[in-house]
Amino acid sequence: MDFYLLRLFNIKRMLWGIGILSCLLVPAKAYCQTVGDSVISIGKAYHLYSGELKENRSYWVYLPQHYNDPRYPTQRYPVLYLLDGDVNFHSLTGMLQFLSKGAYAQLPEMIVVGILNTDRTRDLTPTYANVKAMNGISASFESSGGAEGFISFLKNEMMPLIDSSYRTMGYRILTGHSFGGLAAVNILLHHPGMFHSYLAIDPSLWWDNEYMLRRADSLFRDENRFKGRQLFMSLAFKEHSEIDTTTDQERAIRTFAAKLKRNAPVGLRWNFAYYESEDHGSVPLRSELEGLRFLFKGYQAEVKQLLQKPELLEAGYKELSVQLGYTFLPPEYLVDWIASFCEKNGKYSSAKYLLEMNVRNYPESKGAAERLHNVVQKRFSRAEGRYQSRRGEFLR
Amino acid sequence: MDFYLLRLFNIKRMLWGIGILSCLLVPAKAYCQTVGDSVISIGKAYHLYSGELKENRSYWVYLPQHYNDPRYPTQRYPVLYLLDGDVNFHSLTGMLQFLSKGAYAQLPEMIVVGILNTDRTRDLTPTYANVKAMNGISASFESSGGAEGFISFLKNEMMPLIDSSYRTMGYRILTGHSFGGLAAVNILLHHPGMFHSYLAIDPSLWWDNEYMLRRADSLFRDENRFKGRQLFMSLAFKEHSEIDTTTDQERAIRTFAAKLKRNAPVGLRWNFAYYESEDHGSVPLRSELEGLRFLFKGYQAEVKQLLQKPELLEAGYKELSVQLGYTFLPPEYLVDWIASFCEKNGKYSSAKYLLEMNVRNYPESKGAAERLHNVVQKRFSRAEGRYQSRRGEFLR
Repeated sequence: MDFYLLRLFNIKRMLWGIGILSCLLVPAKAYCQTVGDSVISIGKAYHLYSGELKENRSYWVYLPQHYNDPRYPTQRYPVLYLLDGDVNFHSLTGMLQFLSKGAYAQLPEMIVVGILNTDRTRDLTPTYANVKAMNGISASFESSGGAEGFISFLKNEMMPLIDSSYRTMGYRILTGHSFGGLAAVNILLHHPGMFHSYLAIDPSLWWDNEYMLRRADSLFRDENRFKGRQLFMSLAFKEHSEIDTTTDQERAIRTFAAKLKRNAPVGLRWNFAYYESEDHGSVPLRSELEGLRFLFKGYQAEVKQLLQKPELLEAGYKELSVQLGYTFLPPEYLVDWIASFCEKNGKYSSAKYLLEMNVRNYPESKGAAERLHNVVQKRFSRAEGRYQSRRGEFLR
Repeated sequence: MDFYLLRLFNIKRMLWGIGILSCLLVPAKAYCQTVGDSVISIGKAYHLYSGELKENRSYWVYLPQHYNDPRYPTQRYPVLYLLDGDVNFHSLTGMLQFLSKGAYAQLPEMIVVGILNTDRTRDLTPTYANVKAMNGISASFESSGGAEGFISFLKNEMMPLIDSSYRTMGYRILTGHSFGGLAAVNILLHHPGMFHSYLAIDPSLWWDNEYMLRRADSLFRDENRFKGRQLFMSLAFKEHSEIDTTTDQERAIRTFAAKLKRNAPVGLRWNFAYYESEDHGSVPLRSELEGLRFLFKGYQAEVKQLLQKPELLEAGYKELSVQLGYTFLPPEYLVDWIASFCEKNGKYSSAKYLLEMNVRNYPESKGAAERLHNVVQKRFSRAEGRYQSRRGEFLR
């Protein structure tokens, strides 16, 4: 696509043109990796022995598009931890890959760590509640109440291993569905320092006579406890029986949402969504889509504006960092893309401004310095070229 | 999870209990494949030489969960063809995998074939329209207008190769975004026999002064042309410029939707969705999610009802087959799952009914006959067991 043609038009018309042209640019490049024998790969499976849990644990790791790009060897990434990891791994990483690609990305590229289950009930439930769970219907929850052990495994074994194995930036998100959502709310309430943001998808807050709601009542009073934390909670459509006007699960989730509305700690940024057209099984897709975008609201760069005012990019990231309670710098790969877009549109000073920002933000990146050098050189040659050609005219 | 406990309660209470228990059952099993060296794989990349196009073409293939399951070697699958295949492959297959798993699946398992681009503009545009495209702004569309060649490649080379390489059932879906959406509408209008259902995602219907809209005017008159065809079309939010109250793209899509509303051919089942919170780049995710569910509306089995009335399953598939204009049989793997659910809940006659259906629908499946035999045997032993124990009581 030749953007130079667009310079023939005035700027408004040009921006409008880019608006349509961008429609044509989006589908352009592949991001899945093909490995030997042409297998299309989205991650790798690993395991570690947990001293805390006295068992082997499996986990799957997805690395984002630019992770192994030789141009960005120092780029660091947020990590999203996914409970019931294998079940949601394909769909969640697919959505993330799709929404974090290109200059109009709505989400940052992230590392995803999916944690596979051994004893799901044990790991994800905060209390022992085998009998009289679920309004008198007992079920096989004999192993329930092991959340603290699982949390120690995450905190002392899993997370340190990930941080030492990959270029993580320190920002962490936890995503869980059903019992996994219960676990996410439990960790937010009792270990709010472990993760910065939480997606609790149709969480099983009915557990143990709404144990989590009672805990929230007392813990929400501590205003500083949840500073800089974010929570997105969702509820799927529930079939109502004739016995009760609503199920325990729906009631518990709605009560928790009402508590948040009435009484959320000041520092906690939260949102709640009810999906009438999703059932308990399908609800993770839309919850992840809208939940992650809620967490990173404002992330998308206004690429067209940046052509003229590249300084808006840094301003936007400062705002985002305040929202997230954590410093996010514009990723080197994204700034590079926008700089080359500026360059293609003849906005050399904007390109230079952006590449200088990369050098400042990524002082260890050799590529950043090189690319800045190149654009300065090119600009000089262009000016030089114009001068020579003008001089030629005069001399002729 | 022990469902036998539930038999202690009356049936209404039991169904209600299952409603909650099902919440706990959903996340249970992995579906991505791990291959040597623990790579997590979602497909394979291939290529073929196209005589029609005189070039090599790459394509990616995703096979669904049960495709290589040794229990179901005769199961056949619909095929979803994906334009701009590599760009959407990860996210689309992830969503499909997630929504086609388990007994509450909302979509059938499908094979996905992603077709990668060589000259995108050539393949996806129906006419040559390099000059004066897009309201006077010319762009690099020099190669435009090659759709017929690409369609011949699909029809005479790609599709026969897929049908001879995989266990396809003959039902075909085409999905395209932007220029790919334009291509999907073009194929629906001019080659409606090639695919049964079409997703046209934010399609570039502005192309060549709304060429496709003019074609629709004349082709929609032929009522029989679109019998048994389905179309889902979506529109993303568009930023409006000051030059025009709406972009060419939005106007063209809305005009096409209005034509459908006023004047759709009787045989065409269609739907249109406007996504205000999605931009042109992000809109494929929700369009695929809601578009595929529109195509297969009614697919989800009412598992709880089937415990009592297993005959409803076949009735549901008959209805679905009418909607799709194509015979869909209940998949053997799904019927097996429901039968074993019936068995676990002591509904032996329902299990037997369902397994007999499998034997009827899949006469070549050895497993179907075996599983029917097993359940009949077990039932007999149970009756026998009860008789013996009752006899013991009398004798004591």
